[in-house]
Amino acid sequence: MKIALGQINTTVGDITANIEKMLDFASRAKKAKADLIVFPELAVAGYPPLDLLLKDSFIQANLEGVHKLKDSLEIPAIVGFVDINHGKGKHLYNACAFLEDGAIKAVQHKTLLPTYDVFDEDRYFQPASQHTPILFRDINIGLSICEDIWTRGDILEKLSYQIDPLQILSEKKPELLINISASPFAVGKEHIRQELVKEQTRRHKLPMVYVNSVGGNDQLIFDGRSFVMNEKGELVALAKAFEEDLIFVDVDSRKETGVKLQGTIEEFSSDRTVNTLAALVLGTRDYMRKCGFQKAVIGLSGGIDSAVTAAIAVKAVGKENVMGIAMPSPFSSQHSIDDARELAESLGIEFHIIPIEPAMNAYDTMLAGLFQGRGRDVTEENIQARIRGAILMAASNKMGHLVLATGNKSELAVGYCTLYGDMCGGLAVISDLPKMMVYDVARYINEEAGKPVIPVSTIDKPPSAELRPNQLDQDSLPPYVILDGILHAYVEQRRKPDEIIRLGYRPEVVQDVINRIDRNEYKRKQAAPGLKVSSRAFGMGWRMPIAQRFREKATVQAGGTH
Amino acid sequence: MKIALGQINTTVGDITANIEKMLDFASRAKKAKADLIVFPELAVAGYPPLDLLLKDSFIQANLEGVHKLKDSLEIPAIVGFVDINHGKGKHLYNACAFLEDGAIKAVQHKTLLPTYDVFDEDRYFQPASQHTPILFRDINIGLSICEDIWTRGDILEKLSYQIDPLQILSEKKPELLINISASPFAVGKEHIRQELVKEQTRRHKLPMVYVNSVGGNDQLIFDGRSFVMNEKGELVALAKAFEEDLIFVDVDSRKETGVKLQGTIEEFSSDRTVNTLAALVLGTRDYMRKCGFQKAVIGLSGGIDSAVTAAIAVKAVGKENVMGIAMPSPFSSQHSIDDARELAESLGIEFHIIPIEPAMNAYDTMLAGLFQGRGRDVTEENIQARIRGAILMAASNKMGHLVLATGNKSELAVGYCTLYGDMCGGLAVISDLPKMMVYDVARYINEEAGKPVIPVSTIDKPPSAELRPNQLDQDSLPPYVILDGILHAYVEQRRKPDEIIRLGYRPEVVQDVINRIDRNEYKRKQAAPGLKVSSRAFGMGWRMPIAQRFREKATVQAGGTH
Repeated sequence: MKIALGQINTTVGDITANIEKMLDFASRAKKAKADLIVFPELAVAGYPPLDLLLKDSFIQANLEGVHKLKDSLEIPAIVGFVDINHGKGKHLYNACAFLEDGAIKAVQHKTLLPTYDVFDEDRYFQPASQHTPILFRDINIGLSICEDIWTRGDILEKLSYQIDPLQILSEKKPELLINISASPFAVGKEHIRQELVKEQTRRHKLPMVYVNSVGGNDQLIFDGRSFVMNEKGELVALAKAFEEDLIFVDVDSRKETGVKLQGTIEEFSSDRTVNTLAALVLGTRDYMRKCGFQKAVIGLSGGIDSAVTAAIAVKAVGKENVMGIAMPSPFSSQHSIDDARELAESLGIEFHIIPIEPAMNAYDTMLAGLFQGRGRDVTEENIQARIRGAILMAASNKMGHLVLATGNKSELAVGYCTLYGDMCGGLAVISDLPKMMVYDVARYINEEAGKPVIPVSTIDKPPSAELRPNQLDQDSLPPYVILDGILHAYVEQRRKPDEIIRLGYRPEVVQDVINRIDRNEYKRKQAAPGLKVSSRAFGMGWRMPIAQRFREKATVQAGGTH
Repeated sequence: MKIALGQINTTVGDITANIEKMLDFASRAKKAKADLIVFPELAVAGYPPLDLLLKDSFIQANLEGVHKLKDSLEIPAIVGFVDINHGKGKHLYNACAFLEDGAIKAVQHKTLLPTYDVFDEDRYFQPASQHTPILFRDINIGLSICEDIWTRGDILEKLSYQIDPLQILSEKKPELLINISASPFAVGKEHIRQELVKEQTRRHKLPMVYVNSVGGNDQLIFDGRSFVMNEKGELVALAKAFEEDLIFVDVDSRKETGVKLQGTIEEFSSDRTVNTLAALVLGTRDYMRKCGFQKAVIGLSGGIDSAVTAAIAVKAVGKENVMGIAMPSPFSSQHSIDDARELAESLGIEFHIIPIEPAMNAYDTMLAGLFQGRGRDVTEENIQARIRGAILMAASNKMGHLVLATGNKSELAVGYCTLYGDMCGGLAVISDLPKMMVYDVARYINEEAGKPVIPVSTIDKPPSAELRPNQLDQDSLPPYVILDGILHAYVEQRRKPDEIIRLGYRPEVVQDVINRIDRNEYKRKQAAPGLKVSSRAFGMGWRMPIAQRFREKATVQAGGTH
């Protein structure tokens, strides 16, 4: 027997297209003589559907999709959909259907509903109340959905789940486990997933087929990497990362030896920079495609952030679909304009230079009366950023291109960015990358290309917003290596100020950075959606109040030297 | 015996100030010879604390707050806080402490955790596992928290709650029920609350003391209106709406008659316009105060939206703290400038006129090359809006004033607004008011003042964005009375297109409005936080994906005449 893993890229709400894709994959699987094909979590609806789940018509369309699949699939399938039970109230379930011979032979609901970080499943779904293996070609198969297998002791305790669906299933003597997932990418996540499944397969002495989604959906990027492990926790099949794939596993099932699996393994780098870049390319491509944009426009400052964003955009949609605009002010250095031009040339993208001095002068004229007697300050710097934002938005409005915002996570964290200025854009490509990671990605892009796609001087020069003469980021901020270290400890690792100081940072620097992070929530609330690649990103999974006065204070008085 | 209802306005995260306030209220209650004071849900932490709950230091500070209260309160109290249980994992509870004689005598956890609309309590809390009445001065009192009493059959079914905490409590023979709440305002909500409690008091034949929060916290506005009902569901005490209050209820407890309650009733209007205005004034005042802003700046167009926003700001923080700026373009009519000036004069606020033509010309010059061969379109209209946004933000940056955004719900719904233009601001005051409601509020403001605070011509003239010559909103949009009707049916009532057509609207208009609403999610994602006054607002409780392709189609071909 042969099982196909249909690692597909669905679009949220495009039920017709999702169904077509599954029929196509099933047809290809049939040609390869597969007996069963498995699709990811909520493949019919697309994931995450969020508040579309509150629309009856959406649930209905998804149910009609399952019926269409049931009637048209060329081979049996396991597929994720939204189930509804009209028994008592109107209950929805994150569910998995077993389709065979034109019938829905079985439905398994999801038991553990993640309601943390970016997940809100308790908002929409009820948990499973029963767990019954299905019988397919004489093999008992235990079905589960994503979070249902995340039941290592430490996780169960942390998340307060009261039951272990795999344990319940395993008591019903399945010979094979299948899990359908929509597990978003984060750096290093593939190891965590494989270690988890290794532990579960060994614990239950059962093989597992794990089918994950692939593709970008707003802030979330699914990396695919579906895989199969045998009952000893050995990897026997692995699908591609960051692209659709259809792989097969041969199932040898005999009474004496049980279910044995064999497949092929597609290796993908485990390097964090390589993975991050691939994730951002996919996230950008899919956001544009799924929103209906063909072209992107990016403000090129000559600096590292816009250079990396532009390089990612070119990888995502092709150089012919990316426009760069340099918008120098009198404070811009000639080398910045040269670097921007050199970047555009090496990427081969359309490039324009629009000096912003006319608008700066206009604002000075318009505001002279109101500001009489007041000196120049950050106000005039923000005006420059807002002029650039307005020019990019004008290009977008006139030509239909998507503006890609270029801010990084370090800036967004401490508010070193201008609302309605450099924060303008439909998608913030690198907003979950700390500055040092932006450099890593830049260097890797050049290394991969075997030439300086991103100009060496862009990488080597000290970062500057160039909003006043001789300005450097480091005049206003701690060195990025220190800022990023504190940011990682505070945001991703959720450490307290004192713990961060004990890592070796100076108390006053730690307190300053944390204060800035807390104080700038109002800017982040109006930021463009950003692609999530870390374990904790600003955005949909970060829900801080604005009008609040809790401030964490360091009590350790002396500390590290950073 | 006497029970005090401490209807207080807390600040999220300002635990020290919240404790001070409670000590002060308790001291006043003691002077009035009260025996017990009751404070709202999560009064120690402030509500909603959102992801502050993920910080150990925040939980710890809140626990220290409870201990401070226990040691310092002059009379016994019932108070909301965040409890923690280190037993198995690190479980948090939305809890209620009974403090007496320097000790925490009892803790009751919340059972029903709302996880819908603006609420995410399953993200943070575990439900109660036990329900035990407390004994105070020979009276058995059953404690519950907010959602715990929302257990009418129809609600239980809709929300899928499996248990009814009031039923469990009532089986333990309490003589009095106390509920502490943080129940946000929505138009008409006070009736819903009173009807609910009336039903519960009658069902259980028990009196209930209901203590609600008051105050604005980001998007949520709590209207207070704490009250007491006897066992027949008769209102015996009612606190003020939209302000802090300390009211008392006399408890006559005898074996033969049971617990009898008597208090005073503060009437507040039930008119929806009056309530909406009061809510917005409180929401604006508290957002500014809790964020640390003294002054506000508003762009005055001469139109109704900015006029109402400015009038609300004056009520919220005083005329000396509001600045109006008119920013006419060559397309602005003289009557618009006159109306803006007249408004500023009647409100008595600082007023400036800054014509934006210099910046319009600058953008024309800067963009001439890029736009060569292309005609003028909405791009140039958006540039005007963005120049105005940048001027307001410049005033904010230079002077420290908060920019109040002036967009209404109708515009935000269909995207008739400019990102980074008129959408600029720290708080969107009327973004949950459909246009027709904005007119209602304007007329009421004038009626209340007994003079045209908002110029009559502002109310009477047809709405126009004045972004091109002779432009009227109605050139691009259906008449607001129709748009608002469809919007209400689609967004607040969650009706399907066909149902809306059957209400009497034209199919093509319904389809057009719904398409615009669905298509403009990307704008709303970057909107300023808006004050919620309806049962369903855009913002924290509205979570739609952007890159999604589900579109609801009307199938009814003929319909109403609107």
